[in-house]
Amino acid sequence: MRIALGVSYSGSRYQGWQSQPGGNTVQDQLEAALGRFATQSIHTLCAGRTDAGVHGLMQVVHFDTDLQRAPNSWVRGTNTFLPPDIAVHWAREVPGGPEGFHCRASAMARRYAYVLLQSPVRPSVEAGRVGWVFMPLQPEAMRQAAQLLLGEHDFSSFRASACQAKTPVKTLHRIDISFTPAGNAPMRENQEMPCGYWRFEFEGNAFLHHMIRNIMGCLIYIGQGSQPVDWMQQVLDARSRDAAAPTFSPDGLYFLGPVYDPCWGLPGSTPAFAWLP
Amino acid sequence: MRIALGVSYSGSRYQGWQSQPGGNTVQDQLEAALGRFATQSIHTLCAGRTDAGVHGLMQVVHFDTDLQRAPNSWVRGTNTFLPPDIAVHWAREVPGGPEGFHCRASAMARRYAYVLLQSPVRPSVEAGRVGWVFMPLQPEAMRQAAQLLLGEHDFSSFRASACQAKTPVKTLHRIDISFTPAGNAPMRENQEMPCGYWRFEFEGNAFLHHMIRNIMGCLIYIGQGSQPVDWMQQVLDARSRDAAAPTFSPDGLYFLGPVYDPCWGLPGSTPAFAWLP
Repeated sequence: MRIALGVSYSGSRYQGWQSQPGGNTVQDQLEAALGRFATQSIHTLCAGRTDAGVHGLMQVVHFDTDLQRAPNSWVRGTNTFLPPDIAVHWAREVPGGPEGFHCRASAMARRYAYVLLQSPVRPSVEAGRVGWVFMPLQPEAMRQAAQLLLGEHDFSSFRASACQAKTPVKTLHRIDISFTPAGNAPMRENQEMPCGYWRFEFEGNAFLHHMIRNIMGCLIYIGQGSQPVDWMQQVLDARSRDAAAPTFSPDGLYFLGPVYDPCWGLPGSTPAFAWLP
Repeated sequence: MRIALGVSYSGSRYQGWQSQPGGNTVQDQLEAALGRFATQSIHTLCAGRTDAGVHGLMQVVHFDTDLQRAPNSWVRGTNTFLPPDIAVHWAREVPGGPEGFHCRASAMARRYAYVLLQSPVRPSVEAGRVGWVFMPLQPEAMRQAAQLLLGEHDFSSFRASACQAKTPVKTLHRIDISFTPAGNAPMRENQEMPCGYWRFEFEGNAFLHHMIRNIMGCLIYIGQGSQPVDWMQQVLDARSRDAAAPTFSPDGLYFLGPVYDPCWGLPGSTPAFAWLP
């Protein structure tokens, strides 16, 4: 039978999702815990591989096994063997086989959020969990630039050289940009700047390697006024990584999870993490 | 001259605030960074010592030095030498001497928040930064029990044996209890339980060692229905640590900072951390 799991994790201590010889990845930790609970080797596939330092709020994985266990036993049993920064939230039996559920192929869309601290002082309590800008960003410029990316495009300019995707053509459905103020702080020139947290939410059919971090770098250039809004169009049209801004930090990037057809009966939405603006 | 600093930190990696021979405390890290910036040994006092694992959102420290530096140089210079989970937010020159500012003695009150995840699944992304309960808590019972603690009392029942305070008599001004829902999750018996984050905010003139974590243990007993509301009065009246619940986890405890008379001209409020419900 085929089992699907919803998994959350902090990426700070791991070299990304995908299994590596060193073993210090989220997949390695999850498969080790599943293996200890099931007392058999279990290999998982995931809906969206995340880089080193990127967090997962609702990663979805599936695996095939002949072991008969109640869904909640997979949750509690596996959590017993996982480190404190990884947890299984739910388990469901899903149809397997060629017509069945496949966590990657069945995903109609994927959602990510980038959380960015705007403050003259770098993060401390939130170190590793937010990106950081120390100058105010202009929301309207960023929103106009984001509009230029929506729809189906060749995103080669935002693609890491190590990317294994078959095609650089992806469809971006939505980029929402919001700001939660958290008071004011003195700036260098005795001005006050608004402190707070930007949240950039992305939804698309799929994403290239480093695509969101590369888009973030460009949006921040535009938000700071280092580049005009229509520079985003130039970057997109160039279809060359050289045209874009440097890859932004992984620290504030959260994989919110895949979107599936309700026919699969999986829990629909990412749990709202109250600390995520 | 005397300098006051506002400092934030994650307590997860440190053995508390106070300097220890091993050197792995927040005070040790801060004094090492100040010493490197000032190229002289600097000894700090703080407004509220925090335990191992407890976080500080606006700790206030002061020190005396003959070094002349602009306030913002103390901020940026010290941050250069601090680890990523500790940051200085502001620096101010304050009056020294017997009539001057003293970060501990001048504090009229201190504020703490406890953040508690209510979910059938333990924290993962927030590991070390929230406490956890896996059964729903009843807010009205906890609020009624909290009322019994307000005002001046002998808090011996909530005092750790290692506490160095001169007197167990302290004054609690306020305990606010709120809940931010974050969806629902299936429980063991196929019921749905409300998931989300409790926030308990405490303000008092001063706190004994472990006092908030011991109060939290008792409030959770009452919120879960393991004890009735008036059990809190019995615990308080007993003036014995044996009467109270076990000390609750440090993970969700945040020192929000001291409250000073505005005459000192220090930044007034804790920056709102958007991820803190």
